[in-house]
Amino acid sequence: MAEKITPRSQDFSEWYQDIVLQAKLADYSPVKGCMVIRPNGYSIWERIQRELDGRIKKTGVRNAYFPLFIPESFLKKEAEHVEGFAPQCAVVTYAGAKDLEEKLVVRPTSETIINSMFAKWIQSYRDLPLLINQWANVVRWEMRTRLFLRTTEFLWQEGHTCHATAEEAEAEARLMLQVYTEFAENVLAMPVIPGRKSDSERFAGALRTYSIEAMMQDTKALQAGTSHNLSTNFAQAFDTQFLDKDSKKKFVHQTSWGVSTRLIGGMIMTHSDDKGLVLPPRLAQTHVAIVPILAKAEHKAKVLEVSDRLAAAIQENAGVRSLGYDVGVIVDRDEQKQAGWKFHEYELLGMPVRIEVGPRDLEKNQVVLTRRDEGVKHFVALDDVPAMIGQILADMQKQLLEKARAFRDANTHRVETFEQLKKGLDEKGGFYVGPWCQSRESEEKLKEETKATIRCLPMDAEFNLISEEGACVITGQKGNNVRAIFARAY
Amino acid sequence: MAEKITPRSQDFSEWYQDIVLQAKLADYSPVKGCMVIRPNGYSIWERIQRELDGRIKKTGVRNAYFPLFIPESFLKKEAEHVEGFAPQCAVVTYAGAKDLEEKLVVRPTSETIINSMFAKWIQSYRDLPLLINQWANVVRWEMRTRLFLRTTEFLWQEGHTCHATAEEAEAEARLMLQVYTEFAENVLAMPVIPGRKSDSERFAGALRTYSIEAMMQDTKALQAGTSHNLSTNFAQAFDTQFLDKDSKKKFVHQTSWGVSTRLIGGMIMTHSDDKGLVLPPRLAQTHVAIVPILAKAEHKAKVLEVSDRLAAAIQENAGVRSLGYDVGVIVDRDEQKQAGWKFHEYELLGMPVRIEVGPRDLEKNQVVLTRRDEGVKHFVALDDVPAMIGQILADMQKQLLEKARAFRDANTHRVETFEQLKKGLDEKGGFYVGPWCQSRESEEKLKEETKATIRCLPMDAEFNLISEEGACVITGQKGNNVRAIFARAY
Repeated sequence: MAEKITPRSQDFSEWYQDIVLQAKLADYSPVKGCMVIRPNGYSIWERIQRELDGRIKKTGVRNAYFPLFIPESFLKKEAEHVEGFAPQCAVVTYAGAKDLEEKLVVRPTSETIINSMFAKWIQSYRDLPLLINQWANVVRWEMRTRLFLRTTEFLWQEGHTCHATAEEAEAEARLMLQVYTEFAENVLAMPVIPGRKSDSERFAGALRTYSIEAMMQDTKALQAGTSHNLSTNFAQAFDTQFLDKDSKKKFVHQTSWGVSTRLIGGMIMTHSDDKGLVLPPRLAQTHVAIVPILAKAEHKAKVLEVSDRLAAAIQENAGVRSLGYDVGVIVDRDEQKQAGWKFHEYELLGMPVRIEVGPRDLEKNQVVLTRRDEGVKHFVALDDVPAMIGQILADMQKQLLEKARAFRDANTHRVETFEQLKKGLDEKGGFYVGPWCQSRESEEKLKEETKATIRCLPMDAEFNLISEEGACVITGQKGNNVRAIFARAY
Repeated sequence: MAEKITPRSQDFSEWYQDIVLQAKLADYSPVKGCMVIRPNGYSIWERIQRELDGRIKKTGVRNAYFPLFIPESFLKKEAEHVEGFAPQCAVVTYAGAKDLEEKLVVRPTSETIINSMFAKWIQSYRDLPLLINQWANVVRWEMRTRLFLRTTEFLWQEGHTCHATAEEAEAEARLMLQVYTEFAENVLAMPVIPGRKSDSERFAGALRTYSIEAMMQDTKALQAGTSHNLSTNFAQAFDTQFLDKDSKKKFVHQTSWGVSTRLIGGMIMTHSDDKGLVLPPRLAQTHVAIVPILAKAEHKAKVLEVSDRLAAAIQENAGVRSLGYDVGVIVDRDEQKQAGWKFHEYELLGMPVRIEVGPRDLEKNQVVLTRRDEGVKHFVALDDVPAMIGQILADMQKQLLEKARAFRDANTHRVETFEQLKKGLDEKGGFYVGPWCQSRESEEKLKEETKATIRCLPMDAEFNLISEEGACVITGQKGNNVRAIFARAY
């Protein structure tokens, strides 16, 4: 029945795929590059949506919905934008049993179609700031795909904002980067490094792109979210202007920002182990599985009764209720499957807490409690359990973040020369921090010779890049260098 | 500033469009037939999603996500299905800068792509029932579109279930019809008639289609949701089989069911008036707008302070908190706009309750409270307000439903002859209830000569059609007639 999960040490990529398929998070579809998100995976996305949506709305943003289709001519209005996205577009050429006069691109991102509406809605400075977000599907034709991490169709949110000044747009792009950082750490328990992208990694059409970068357990980097200052690039292409207080017409300054179902892949590769999924409690739909030991008929009624009472007591406990999310508790009454099989299954599925209620333990008024990430059985007095669960879930949430941060820090190295970098990447992987001259040629060399990229340029508290005294790690150039993170990435 | 709303009596269709555009619920997009759902409209959709999603999940259904694209060959596997949907399909023919080997249809509905996965996932009776729902966008190329009511792209939920027996599938189709009925009445405050569709109105590929039908204020019908018993039609096309307890391989019996953003259009045409949107409180994001009268500088501080205290007291009130949904209260501090302008704006936007806090009333320790659907100003003691709001919102929710039901009943008529029907439809519109012979020819005649259709065949408590003694309204045929509802529809 149970398939074996490839250990991480043997093949990380196989391990990842085993977890996703065996925990029934997602599946391959018959459409090339498109995945199916199964209920176990979709419930994680629903938790992500709820948590992030609340954070986005708190900043004053409102949700809306724009068309799936973008007229081909719209995409072409911003030169960099079309150059970046055209090779990845899926195009509708006939519809309603007729060839279309103008082809329609299935949105790879919505800056253009949204600007066509913004241009209509915005008249004066009183209409600003305009802060919009959309939860939607997008399509980018991909050659090599991987469940959740890179798929032709994916789900995401894309924020699009308009501001009266360049300063306000920059502030919004930074604010959303901070929202993503806090969200990644406190909800996904995934530590991230916020930073600025190098010019060659900028979003096609942006003035400046920020991102959050996470380290997976194979020490490779994953870009987990981006926030762009679009300046007036799209506003000029679509004539999105407003009448300012000084009675002059001006282009709006814009931002866009997004995270996607890729986060689920990042979360899996951050926390899970060779037994299966490890899920931060904030992302779980069910948090506690109570497994009554039903092997002996004479104890069944008692064991079930205690289990049901325990489930109710947990859900009514003040500590559990104060966590800020709904805690799900189930009593597993299935008599077809043995307890051992169930334990294995809950490990695979990432159930945060498992409680065994057995007749022998009940004689001592105790149960066996196991936290998924620790895997250690604790004998606990039955009456103490309800009051412990809230703290256990809070601890688990916190410790998953701490563990991931410690792992990342242990695999982040200072680097001074290109030789050191190449040797380090080949021998132990990880993140490398060192001086960089910001030239495009050096990025090309880095990619070609090491398969690594500049992940981001870390920033100080004022969002300034950090000066580095030493010579550029790649070119050896001295002077005007900034701190960069070099790593191989997904 | 404020545009005028066309009165319903003058042009119902213009009135509807005026409400949608002026209340900023939706807008036309540059893509033919596709709408933009603006934040005011999308927040209604979010409320609909939350309320309905909870109801669907309570029946054991789980959410998932399937690809946007369907290989053309899949659509062709079920003969009726492709015949029904092919003329409306939008088709991707090239992607990733290459012509596709197999064209991809943008989903008009997902039975086929979902069955390709069900066939893979379902092995034995232990995997049944399989109950899945998806919130998604779909595309059906339409010639004549209308905001919310009929658009090329729309948002919806589509449930897809698999069962071991025909009886279970039929029970599921009926259960979801009941869920939709309760939801339409208790959330949208929109009374509906559940019934069975005639054969010619069946979903392409279904054995049997049920629907809920509502009456709009122009007395035309709106189909507001459908639930289909698909029998084994798609299972046979996709070989979706399971090993039953008797060790025999059998095709699963399936259902599908859906409601869409069309509900927002139906809700508008059920409740709104010549002043603007009337929104059932359960669909509102903000429920109470407190408008402090700020005209005189010397009273400003006092009026604002009372308003803020009132807002807090309303939100903390036990009656308000027990409504089962979040009640939003705002204090409108905008000093650029006059109170009269604000009142007008809140009427347009469908704010359920408006409270004016003016210095002269405060001397008498009172405020002025107006319920949107009544439009009558009530002088209320300030201290009584918080405890009243919960009841006011509950009453408004209930009375909107009652009012709509009374309207529908007053415009529903018994009919015996085709002449009566034609005359009635032309002179006063409405629903007509009478005997029908169930022949396809009679439906053709009905459509051609009256532009009306068989909306549904009402059912008794056991879901049986209702026998009628009299002759068929259309053909005059006697014997074997069932009750039908004849009406013109959106």
